[in-house]
Amino acid sequence: MDSRYRARFINSLSGFKSANLIGTHDCSGKSNLAIFSSVVHLGSSPALVGFIMRPDNGYRHTLDNIISTKNYTINQVSTEFYNSAHQSSARYEKTQSEFIQIGLSEHYLGNIKAPFVKESRLKYAVKLKEVMPISLNDTLFIIGEITHVICDKVAIKDDGYIDIEALEKVTVCGLESYHKSERLTRLSYAKPDVFTTDISLNGT
Amino acid sequence: MDSRYRARFINSLSGFKSANLIGTHDCSGKSNLAIFSSVVHLGSSPALVGFIMRPDNGYRHTLDNIISTKNYTINQVSTEFYNSAHQSSARYEKTQSEFIQIGLSEHYLGNIKAPFVKESRLKYAVKLKEVMPISLNDTLFIIGEITHVICDKVAIKDDGYIDIEALEKVTVCGLESYHKSERLTRLSYAKPDVFTTDISLNGT
Repeated sequence: MDSRYRARFINSLSGFKSANLIGTHDCSGKSNLAIFSSVVHLGSSPALVGFIMRPDNGYRHTLDNIISTKNYTINQVSTEFYNSAHQSSARYEKTQSEFIQIGLSEHYLGNIKAPFVKESRLKYAVKLKEVMPISLNDTLFIIGEITHVICDKVAIKDDGYIDIEALEKVTVCGLESYHKSERLTRLSYAKPDVFTTDISLNGT
Repeated sequence: MDSRYRARFINSLSGFKSANLIGTHDCSGKSNLAIFSSVVHLGSSPALVGFIMRPDNGYRHTLDNIISTKNYTINQVSTEFYNSAHQSSARYEKTQSEFIQIGLSEHYLGNIKAPFVKESRLKYAVKLKEVMPISLNDTLFIIGEITHVICDKVAIKDDGYIDIEALEKVTVCGLESYHKSERLTRLSYAKPDVFTTDISLNGT
């Protein structure tokens, strides 16, 4: 396979992926924003989240900033600004803030040393916990703990589930195919003796 | 927060997730199937894929089998059988094959020591490469190399992108909310000097 063909093909195999913008700034306060489709839930208690980083490409600024400040924000991407979010993957110079280049707004909370994306209706601050090198392909698995969550209340259901579809969040397949979602159902907790059934959006 | 509320809340933060069934068998050939929403693309060359495993819950059988045979299959879940796929998360006994309990069919290819899900139109065989312990919450990051891919040809586009929406693949949010997708667009490779634009489904 041609290398670009192969990249698109293999990238499609894992299925639908999350679309998140990761916000950081450097020691002088210069902001950076980059899109990642590899953010993955690791556990609820402690609240851990991970993502894969290639240190040798345009994401190097994000890595440097995270290691330097130990802080970053993760901002879910919605239909309203997925084009701008994708544009953040262009290889801008370190002196250029992606926020300005792509037209999204910085938002700061308390003394968190990383910018949120104002336009995102579900976002959170993360504190770096561990950088795990994956020697098989020289990538890094970056793990952090969620410290603050900013979410539109309307999307938080009675049982804790967040209806990200109501917030018009998007999902990605491959390198650049963006999709909105249509809920099939929520399903009940599966037990061996009874087949799972639909439950309401509120979890009842 | 109550622990179940917290689990649902934190689980929703990472965004839309992939829905995949992982097929394994033990040394005696007894099959096992379990759903995972944490499968993540690691790289195309070598073709690596990872997923998060909690060794202390119902997924223990999958882990034992992978370590024992070094082989597993990853089968993307579609609208046709997402209920059955979710049901595979019930804590069946080791002597019970989930294939039989949930009503999906085993399919074998060559000498690959793991069962595919016949009903899945996009699936692949994986060879275990590394088990990385995440000490922060006693989980494991399981990394494998993709060795064989089985995919409906109709979904493979000219440039290598696989249209998993045409295969009616689903995405998950939180613990149990299943969604189908509706493509917004494919976007061009982002460059600093020009804003990304829509491209065709075939990548042109």
